[in-house]
Amino acid sequence: MALGRVPLILFISFILRDGTALSLDLEGLNEQAATHITGQKLNEIFDHLATYSDTVRPGITRLVFTERDMEARVYIKGLMKEAGLVVREDIMGNTFGRWEGSDPKAGTVMSGSHSDTVKLGGPYDGALGVIGAISAVKFLRNQGFQPVKSIECIMFTTEEASRFSIPCLGSQGMTGFLKPEVLDTFKDDNGSSFREAANAAGFTAASAQEFADKALMKDTDSIAAFLELHIEQGPHLEAEKKDIGIVEAIMAPALLRVEFTGRGGHGGGMPMSHRNDPALAASELAILNEKVTLATGADESVSTFGLWDIKPNFYNAVPRSVRVDIDIRDSDKERRDSIITQTLDGAKAIAAQRKCGHTGEIKFEYPIATSDKKVLKAIQRATDALGVSSKRMVSRAYHDAAFMAQLAPTAMIFVPSKDGLSHHPNEHTAPDELARGVQTLALTIAQLAGSGPASDKSEL
Amino acid sequence: MALGRVPLILFISFILRDGTALSLDLEGLNEQAATHITGQKLNEIFDHLATYSDTVRPGITRLVFTERDMEARVYIKGLMKEAGLVVREDIMGNTFGRWEGSDPKAGTVMSGSHSDTVKLGGPYDGALGVIGAISAVKFLRNQGFQPVKSIECIMFTTEEASRFSIPCLGSQGMTGFLKPEVLDTFKDDNGSSFREAANAAGFTAASAQEFADKALMKDTDSIAAFLELHIEQGPHLEAEKKDIGIVEAIMAPALLRVEFTGRGGHGGGMPMSHRNDPALAASELAILNEKVTLATGADESVSTFGLWDIKPNFYNAVPRSVRVDIDIRDSDKERRDSIITQTLDGAKAIAAQRKCGHTGEIKFEYPIATSDKKVLKAIQRATDALGVSSKRMVSRAYHDAAFMAQLAPTAMIFVPSKDGLSHHPNEHTAPDELARGVQTLALTIAQLAGSGPASDKSEL
Repeated sequence: MALGRVPLILFISFILRDGTALSLDLEGLNEQAATHITGQKLNEIFDHLATYSDTVRPGITRLVFTERDMEARVYIKGLMKEAGLVVREDIMGNTFGRWEGSDPKAGTVMSGSHSDTVKLGGPYDGALGVIGAISAVKFLRNQGFQPVKSIECIMFTTEEASRFSIPCLGSQGMTGFLKPEVLDTFKDDNGSSFREAANAAGFTAASAQEFADKALMKDTDSIAAFLELHIEQGPHLEAEKKDIGIVEAIMAPALLRVEFTGRGGHGGGMPMSHRNDPALAASELAILNEKVTLATGADESVSTFGLWDIKPNFYNAVPRSVRVDIDIRDSDKERRDSIITQTLDGAKAIAAQRKCGHTGEIKFEYPIATSDKKVLKAIQRATDALGVSSKRMVSRAYHDAAFMAQLAPTAMIFVPSKDGLSHHPNEHTAPDELARGVQTLALTIAQLAGSGPASDKSEL
Repeated sequence: MALGRVPLILFISFILRDGTALSLDLEGLNEQAATHITGQKLNEIFDHLATYSDTVRPGITRLVFTERDMEARVYIKGLMKEAGLVVREDIMGNTFGRWEGSDPKAGTVMSGSHSDTVKLGGPYDGALGVIGAISAVKFLRNQGFQPVKSIECIMFTTEEASRFSIPCLGSQGMTGFLKPEVLDTFKDDNGSSFREAANAAGFTAASAQEFADKALMKDTDSIAAFLELHIEQGPHLEAEKKDIGIVEAIMAPALLRVEFTGRGGHGGGMPMSHRNDPALAASELAILNEKVTLATGADESVSTFGLWDIKPNFYNAVPRSVRVDIDIRDSDKERRDSIITQTLDGAKAIAAQRKCGHTGEIKFEYPIATSDKKVLKAIQRATDALGVSSKRMVSRAYHDAAFMAQLAPTAMIFVPSKDGLSHHPNEHTAPDELARGVQTLALTIAQLAGSGPASDKSEL
């Protein structure tokens, strides 16, 4: 699927797709990347990482702060050290591998993702962004590349919500989005809180507040860029036979929780005229929510009534309570806010009309992320230099990058997901596709960090 | 709550509520019944019966063919024998206690109910109709009453659906409504079928068909009447301060099962335009079903979307399948059939419009029962003779009587349920209320069986 590769040499003028000519400082890295970053080498690492799992492959289960997660962390920190990086961890277990640039004041280019998985997930969701960043940096080092800006590889703690029901805890903590007051309210299947599990894993804090205070990154202005390489988790790249997705926005979700209550009663005994059936109220709301979502006319406006908790849920009992969790996403904040408002107002009106009890709240509301134009351009240059095909797209799933994007110039790089599958044992990306993703990441990092002694100017 | 009692003596003319004068053959039984049938005596039996329970009182759990049920059966058969009845059992465990009338060809008056309970039920649901019939017959015997028709007390096997998910198995078997092809498909929590449990309890059949064939009553024309005494399981008698409910119809349910399917997908990844969300289809159907049920304008038309089985039921996953069980009841068959048809047709149209997969079927459809006018009149006479207040009503719950009514002149007698509660440990009926129910039953049986040597004519 890769197009013919064009070797680039130092300071050769290169015609970009958009017709502009830019001076690129890639020193032939594109050629070398295609040779040295291979799917086979990467899969040796992924295959080993996949052994840290509480389930047998193909299903991989590595929940945060379990023994398997701690073993995987040791392995990944080893990879960072092997790549010549200086490793540090923050209070929440976010792990950083740093390569000091020639100009320590020029800022830092960061790249990473998470190493935890869902229950019975696959080998690449998250892991690709961590292993990919380390492999890219190791490649640059081996090529004698000397970055002007510093480079940091990141492994975020628990992007998946599989153990504590809240996604992106590590990146939320680093970026100031973590709400300490709710952190203790979510427990795992054994009743442990994040704090208890973190403390047991050696990341010790006396309170949720301490996590939030100490994980928060201080000098965020110094983050020159953040890049996250990830599998697409959707079918578009595969369907359109594109190698690389260049992600322009992340459709972060808001979660509404609406509960209707009624007096219930026997399915025969309670006349229709006496009922205030919460399942009928929720049904009306589902139809209303679909209507207002479709009314935006935007493909990126989506709402999902995915979870229905109906009690007592017996065929001849009129429901007494129905709780629905409604996932609302958009690439545009104004549109998303409008759907939220109309849905919550609708719930109130339906409850009043049906004489049901009712609560409605925004359970969480993640920031919509818009990618940085210069970072996008650097990714585009990398794919063009590598001669791989690419597609501008939005991420319909959220990522740690959604939080990083609120503070730093950010973009994501996607590689194809076979059949669009993720969070599934059959999650798969072909070795060449993995390699092209890491090659693209390496060349993008190189451009953004800049090459040479401290006096040289980097691209950003 | 009892009005002043008027002693009736042999062949005295009595003015009925409806203004007609009828010759009653109650031989002063009304006076004696009020004296000899007491709440205290009845509750001694109920208290003992309640000890046959797998849970501690107040919650009573006696599922069919468990050890506790078998112990209760031995106790109840003992009570039948004590009352001078000849006991027999059919292949399904339906148990009969027979008092031969002076004219064996004059037919049989039957009365009974069930002795099994739901999980954590109360002491009277079912048991009142069994113990009440035996107590009524014992009273009549002690009074020297000599019936013309034979009298049979019945204990039906498993009216409750708590072990095998199908209600009224015993009475369905006796009346030809049992479907052998489905009997084996329902299993208890341990995976045992009714046949396996029955065989283990000593009721042996080689197949479900054998149960159906051998339990079926043969000479059903000889059933002169069937009476079932039961707690109301609703709030009407208590609210209106009436002693006795005279049940004119039983609103038996039909159960529809509709399943919608769709392709599911990630709550972010799947655009609205690509969805065929089965939960939205089910929501539309719930609203449509409510509309067509209300449109009958009849208080006795009720529909309940009680059970929603939504998969995968996760907040950011578009549902892949939704199965709803819809309980539809009415006292009028034509109205109920119309609601069923409109609901199933609506499901089909909604599925087509939303491009969902779809199945829709009538899972079961129990016969609506209309009480026999002569039996109703006999109950009315009994309450009038006893000087207790009464109310004509429909049963909004179903009973074994619903099946018996398809073959024989039938009616039910209700006593109040405190707070309308049943299928609940707090199920309660006051001792005097229990006694008035059994007194009414005794006097009704006496009228319907007729008194005297074979040459005398009975009332029916």
